Formats: sequence, C-alpha cells, structure tokens
Amino acid sequence: MKAFAVLAHPERESFNGALFDVAADVFSGGGHEFVSSDLYRMQFDPVSDRRNFTSVKDPQYFKQQIEELHASENSTFRSDIAEEMEKLFWCDLLILQFPLWWFSMPAIMKGWVDRVFAMGRVYGSGKWYDQGVFSGKRAVLSLTTGGGSGSYAEDGLHGDLSQILYPINHGILRFVGFDVLPPFVAWSPVRISPEQRQDYLDSYRRFLTGIDKVEPIAYPALAEFDETFRRKSLV
Amino acid sequence: MKAFAVLAHPERESFNGALFDVAADVFSGGGHEFVSSDLYRMQFDPVSDRRNFTSVKDPQYFKQQIEELHASENSTFRSDIAEEMEKLFWCDLLILQFPLWWFSMPAIMKGWVDRVFAMGRVYGSGKWYDQGVFSGKRAVLSLTTGGGSGSYAEDGLHGDLSQILYPINHGILRFVGFDVLPPFVAWSPVRISPEQRQDYLDSYRRFLTGIDKVEPIAYPALAEFDETFRRKSLV
Repeated sequence: MKAFAVLAHPERESFNGALFDVAADVFSGGGHEFVSSDLYRMQFDPVSDRRNFTSVKDPQYFKQQIEELHASENSTFRSDIAEEMEKLFWCDLLILQFPLWWFSMPAIMKGWVDRVFAMGRVYGSGKWYDQGVFSGKRAVLSLTTGGGSGSYAEDGLHGDLSQILYPINHGILRFVGFDVLPPFVAWSPVRISPEQRQDYLDSYRRFLTGIDKVEPIAYPALAEFDETFRRKSLV
Repeated sequence: MKAFAVLAHPERESFNGALFDVAADVFSGGGHEFVSSDLYRMQFDPVSDRRNFTSVKDPQYFKQQIEELHASENSTFRSDIAEEMEKLFWCDLLILQFPLWWFSMPAIMKGWVDRVFAMGRVYGSGKWYDQGVFSGKRAVLSLTTGGGSGSYAEDGLHGDLSQILYPINHGILRFVGFDVLPPFVAWSPVRISPEQRQDYLDSYRRFLTGIDKVEPIAYPALAEFDETFRRKSLV
C-alpha cells in the first residue's frame, strides 16, 4: 500500500505526533511505501488566493475556480500545491492526523484542502463523489478529542461525532472520490494514563495493519440522485 | 445594536463583499454601531501556535490551552488576537460572512476561531453553551454556496445544510454562548442574474434590519445533560 499521512499539530511531541509516527512505522517497509506532510514543520501556508498560482487568468477579478481550471490546463500551480497534489495522486491511502479543534480540523489543514483540492485537477466536469478523481483510493481520519466519548454520542452534549465529521468525511474526502473509512479516535488523550495512551498507539497500529479490510462508510451513489441533486423516489 | 462583521473572501468585489457592505450600511447609523474584520485585507494569520502569545508558560512542550490560560491571566495575547477579542466582547451581534468552501468556512476564518476563541478568555471553567461567556449576544452566519438549495436539502446530494453547519453553529458559536440565528444563505450567486443578486442584497438588508426579532436555533440547555454529558432521561 502507498500511504500518505498529513499531520496538523503545532507540537511535534504531541500525541498526534505519536500517532503519526505509528503510521510512518507501519507503512515503511513490509512492501508498503510512505510519504507525509507535516504541515506545521513545513510551515504550510493555509491562505488560499492568487498565491496558489504562478499564472493569472483574470487579473481584474479573482474567482478561485476559474484560476484553478486555468492552472490545471497550464500546470501553473505554485510548487507548494503541486507537490501536495503529486502525493495525493500517488497514494492509495490518505490519512489525515489532527486534533479536533472547534469540531473540525485545524486551519492549517483546512487551508491545505482549500488550496490543494483544486477544480480541474481534483474535481470538476462530473467527477465527484463515487465518480470522483480518487475513486478506488481509501481515506481515513485519525483524530484526538478534548472531551470524552460520551459527549460525542448521539445524545451527547457536543452531538454525534459522525455528524460532526460529516462535512469532512463526505464533503471533502468522499466529494473527491475516496472510500472513506470510519475514523480512528483517541478520546481525550490528555486526561488518560501513559498505559492507556500506549494502548491507543497499539490499537492504532492494529487498525492500520488491517486497514485494507475495513469496510468504508456507506454513502448513497450519485446514480441515486436526480438531475436536481435530490434523492430519487424509492418506490 | 453593536454589530461586528467578519469577512473571509479573497476578492473584495465578490458577492460576499457586497453582502458585507450591506451589513456595514445597515449598522452604521440609526443608533447602531459597526466594527469589522476583513480577514484577507488585514492579512490575518490563521496558523495557531506559539505565535499567538507574547508569553511562554511551558517552553518545553506546547499545549495551546495551557498557554491560553497563562495568556488570559497575564494579558499576553499577541496584538492581532487581542484586537479581535476586544471586538468580540464589545459586540451584541456577530456576523460571519463567508463562501462555503468544502462545506465549512475558509481556512483564514477557521484560524481566526482557532486563535481568538481562547480558553480562559472566551471559554473554560464551566463557561460554555448556554452558560457561555457570550450568552445573551447573538451570532449569525451569512454565506454563499456553489450548489443550489436542492443539493443541500435533507434528501440532497451534499446533505442537509443545517447538519453541515452544525459544527460551526453549535460547536463554535453556541459553545461560547451565543444565541445562534438561522443562517442567511445566498444560493449559488455565481449562477444567477444581476436582478436576482440584487434581490438577495435587498432581502439581506431586510433580514438584518429585523434581526433582533429573529428566533434563535433551539439547542438543549446544559442543565438537560448529566455529569457524563449525556442527555438526562426524559421520563
């Protein structure tokens, strides 16, 4: 398997960093290959605008998708974006490793998506969801939380984690075609013992080792929607 | 009313910019007051790490919440954050104006939240949700979409918009205490006529003019959860 792990945590010695290291270890050797983007250490720039391109299609008005299409045709994405695209197209498995900040990914990772997932190259012209550019590849979130699992239950204070992650799992990863696996969640690592943290690292290792057998989250197929993008009647 | 509008769009002449201008116009005069943060023009830095602080609590290990508590006690937030906090505490109404990018806010706005909504100052010590620091204030999202409204219906291709916005409305705004109003949504402004865009601007003006009478989204109160953060039985 060709695995690509993206890490978004300001502290390299964090538990997120330790989980990231497990992924590197599992996929380095044993017939696998591994690449990574440690966004904080790369000082990845998350602000999306004209800086994404070495070309200009419309100098008067900046419409990102127009510029993305132009850059896709002319290979004029700035090198920091082009390098990330190359890793995305190379991998069979994408791992996003992050702490849940404000019930989403840290801005540095959101900006990685905003800038790298460009129209023309990564989606567009009917290429989305199960018809997406990355269809057949797998993606998975590996995340840490501040609160415990109860607060993320369906009847929990924060709400159901699967609903909270839906904009990422469905709206980002599935949108561009990935088969999205259920997330690996380390609940509240800051509040547990070193032994429990080691248990998480061990179970993450087992999870990754068997990841080719994990069943993806079931989403309806494009074909189930009509031309106005509503579910077809199930009669 | 003291209104604070935050704009996240790289093109100032965009429809998001036009909506932002409506808010500025409505709340400048007529007994109202208005402040704003145009994040792209301010070149707001969305990356959250030690740069947030002029102090250091733990030089060995960076744990953001520890540093935030320390900075809250010592007023050592960097000036770009301190200025945004001041506007947040000053306002009665917070407006977040943004294009829906990847079913969430642009990274520059997510980073504004990651950095400005700091533990100790904006939440913590039991101050959250209806007991939050900003309780009694109102907040509202004003956003534009690429797709049409049908694709964001409950049976739509992208999924229900209210679910997609839940991590922001509940997880960010309600978390820190705001009464969260239903969003103002301009569907697919890039695909409509100038007259229809003007209709949106007019209806946004009416929406803002009557915003003190808009009913907030209903969320369960903290008191409805037990000590493990699960809903109390409704027997």
